[in-house]
Amino acid sequence: MHIETEIEELITDTIVDLLTERKFSELKSIISEMNPADIALVMSELPEERIAIFFRLLPKDLAAETFVEIDTDMQEDLIHTFSDAELREVFNELYVDDTVDILEEMPAGVVKRILKNTDKETRHVINELLQYPEDSAGSIMTTEYVRLNSSLTVSDALAVIRRSGVEKETIYTCYVTDNNRIVTGIVTARMLLTSSPDKIIEDIMETNVIVAKTTDDKESVATALQKYDFVALPVVDDENRLVGIVTIDDAIDVLQEEATEDIEKMAAITPTEKPYLKMGTFGLFLSRIPWLLLLMITATFTGMIITGFESSLASQAVLIAFITMLMGTGGNSGSQSSVTIIRALSLEELKLSDIFRVIWKEVRTAILCGSVLALACFAKIWLVDRMLLGNSEITVLVDAVVCISMFITVLVAKVVGAILPMLAQAVKLDPAVMASPFITSIVDVLSLIVYFRVATLLLGI
Amino acid sequence: MHIETEIEELITDTIVDLLTERKFSELKSIISEMNPADIALVMSELPEERIAIFFRLLPKDLAAETFVEIDTDMQEDLIHTFSDAELREVFNELYVDDTVDILEEMPAGVVKRILKNTDKETRHVINELLQYPEDSAGSIMTTEYVRLNSSLTVSDALAVIRRSGVEKETIYTCYVTDNNRIVTGIVTARMLLTSSPDKIIEDIMETNVIVAKTTDDKESVATALQKYDFVALPVVDDENRLVGIVTIDDAIDVLQEEATEDIEKMAAITPTEKPYLKMGTFGLFLSRIPWLLLLMITATFTGMIITGFESSLASQAVLIAFITMLMGTGGNSGSQSSVTIIRALSLEELKLSDIFRVIWKEVRTAILCGSVLALACFAKIWLVDRMLLGNSEITVLVDAVVCISMFITVLVAKVVGAILPMLAQAVKLDPAVMASPFITSIVDVLSLIVYFRVATLLLGI
Repeated sequence: MHIETEIEELITDTIVDLLTERKFSELKSIISEMNPADIALVMSELPEERIAIFFRLLPKDLAAETFVEIDTDMQEDLIHTFSDAELREVFNELYVDDTVDILEEMPAGVVKRILKNTDKETRHVINELLQYPEDSAGSIMTTEYVRLNSSLTVSDALAVIRRSGVEKETIYTCYVTDNNRIVTGIVTARMLLTSSPDKIIEDIMETNVIVAKTTDDKESVATALQKYDFVALPVVDDENRLVGIVTIDDAIDVLQEEATEDIEKMAAITPTEKPYLKMGTFGLFLSRIPWLLLLMITATFTGMIITGFESSLASQAVLIAFITMLMGTGGNSGSQSSVTIIRALSLEELKLSDIFRVIWKEVRTAILCGSVLALACFAKIWLVDRMLLGNSEITVLVDAVVCISMFITVLVAKVVGAILPMLAQAVKLDPAVMASPFITSIVDVLSLIVYFRVATLLLGI
Repeated sequence: MHIETEIEELITDTIVDLLTERKFSELKSIISEMNPADIALVMSELPEERIAIFFRLLPKDLAAETFVEIDTDMQEDLIHTFSDAELREVFNELYVDDTVDILEEMPAGVVKRILKNTDKETRHVINELLQYPEDSAGSIMTTEYVRLNSSLTVSDALAVIRRSGVEKETIYTCYVTDNNRIVTGIVTARMLLTSSPDKIIEDIMETNVIVAKTTDDKESVATALQKYDFVALPVVDDENRLVGIVTIDDAIDVLQEEATEDIEKMAAITPTEKPYLKMGTFGLFLSRIPWLLLLMITATFTGMIITGFESSLASQAVLIAFITMLMGTGGNSGSQSSVTIIRALSLEELKLSDIFRVIWKEVRTAILCGSVLALACFAKIWLVDRMLLGNSEITVLVDAVVCISMFITVLVAKVVGAILPMLAQAVKLDPAVMASPFITSIVDVLSLIVYFRVATLLLGI
């Protein structure tokens, strides 16, 4: 099946038909060949009253894998239709970290019912995982990994994997621990498969092991997995004991979520985890209105500056027409810098100690950009506004006021845009909130002050 | 070693000291325990004249792995110091897809020299891979995968992996093909390790195989790997023959690069692949100035509208003070919508056919946001500007003009902000260029027209 095949449209119709005609055995054979992610897509398109029937047609393991992929609302609805036996069946098949992800989104009553239906040991693990802070490595790790003893032979180790591997989230990296559960090495399935069977684990294991702590930020952990090209990373507690692993599939989800969050914050939206089409109108409204209100209030400062300058503007009305262009160009210059810096910080390409290199780079770039913009602006105003459109209010001095202001504004905007995200990082705030809209508000005020100051000086108003 | 240890500062100093004192054997034993990604970090901090000496201290396989991690300029410098024998040594250890990535960034002379020093078969593969368009699946795939025959037993298959696995990029997913190289199934290392040795591959393989075409967009392929939680995805040619695989580590890099590109485009920056600190001032300038110039020119339209309205504004100068707030709020409202839609399109959460659902959702959200903003604005202007600051030019009618314009502007901005990225997608443009700055320019013009129209109607000016 090709990745770009439009699964939903192709298959959903057939499935709805088969459901309606109650041709369940035919349906079963179709869906048992499908991927969990695709089945979840089909379910999102099914009429609500058919979802529970459809879900019961899935073979046990596929049902559990699909359950992880469907959205929270549908999970909750399905749980309400489950008998206790069905609930156990689904949740027994799940990896513990997936169960925890689901529980975190469920109302208390549902959580209780699920916990009641898991065995004591799993319940204990779940409760521990639920304690970790939302953005920590602990919250995304799984406790189902393969642990090996360093004195085993390769063929013993393969036997361990053969016996217990089915239930582990990954068997591709196995962890060698000592009696205190301290990680002393890692062995990949690749090392095991390409070493001779009688070798001892201790002799082939990689001893330079990179670990994360349960309290580490989950984004750093995901970035480390990407940086080192690992498929899993061990997570240890405060006493350095192995307590879980973070696998690459969860790391990708974290990186994508964080990128989305950054993008949303940069556009002055409160991040949400739901995909766009799942968000209700009121949810969208709530994620957007606080920032709009805040930015509207701060924008009134520009209004106050303009009002304070009103009498001078009345005598030189021509200056009004250039306010929006100046503010716009300043805002754009500032957001270019801030967004670049925010992304570099988030990709860990920049450290706080780089701040002076950053400022120096931005100053030089700003001088280049500012000069070109000022010259282009001067020429455009003279050629178009003065000569072509014949606006006689425009003198060389007026044109100079606009262009000098332009140069200073670009310089200020780029430096402010670069510094603020780094300062935010320094005081442990999220640099992303310092993006375009915030910078623009500040630059708007600054550019007006510059403009009116330059005008006062040169035009003597 | 903990992921957050500041490798560079901790180790670089020691390494520089050892290099200066020419204590090479001690140095060798330290670096041979390190990770390629960390060694590359250390190298980026070394004085230029020491890099070549340092690199020669690395054991052969580590040298090759490190070579992939360092940046293009350093790769090129190193290649110039290599003898042909050294060049062969490094490139023979590399996976073909990494070689191709490096070649794509090198000047023609260097490419020639590298190709001259690879064996005929590899050269042939490299040349083929170099043909694929830059953003295609073909350009990121590797040709080193494990191919199996469906009639093998599990233990035969494990023997094949043991024999040839060392040279393959992944052994965790193996591909079963027929005589025409058509993929008939996949077998994971996990399936092999947890099945009994005498089973036949045909009986345990997964036959529902999802494939990508060499010409598919690399971002779609990466998204598919994320969606299905695969560690590798097979790539086929036009005749459906298996020609390569895309592995998860390359997929993550693609997803991160694409997110960075989207973010840069949203901030009106021409995307570049270099990290911030590696970009020269002139490079930064070039990536930023075209958009600044373009947006400055379009901003002059707002100036022209204001000029056209100058005489009316002279009679009602109080209206000037609200221009920036109106334009700002409009711009912010529009970018919220456009950025949300752009990200949803890029995550494949939205399809073009959803456009009417999107518009309807945005209209309702805009009515909520617009109402709240208009009311807040009305109250603020009346309470602060009129009563607190005693600006007697502000009448109820003036206040109403501002707030009605605010409501209409928000509505228009959100709808335009949502529609434009989808239209861009429809005509195969990148939706990301329709982000904040572009939307803001359009909304600026629209909000002024709305403002002056409403003012003319209500105030009769």
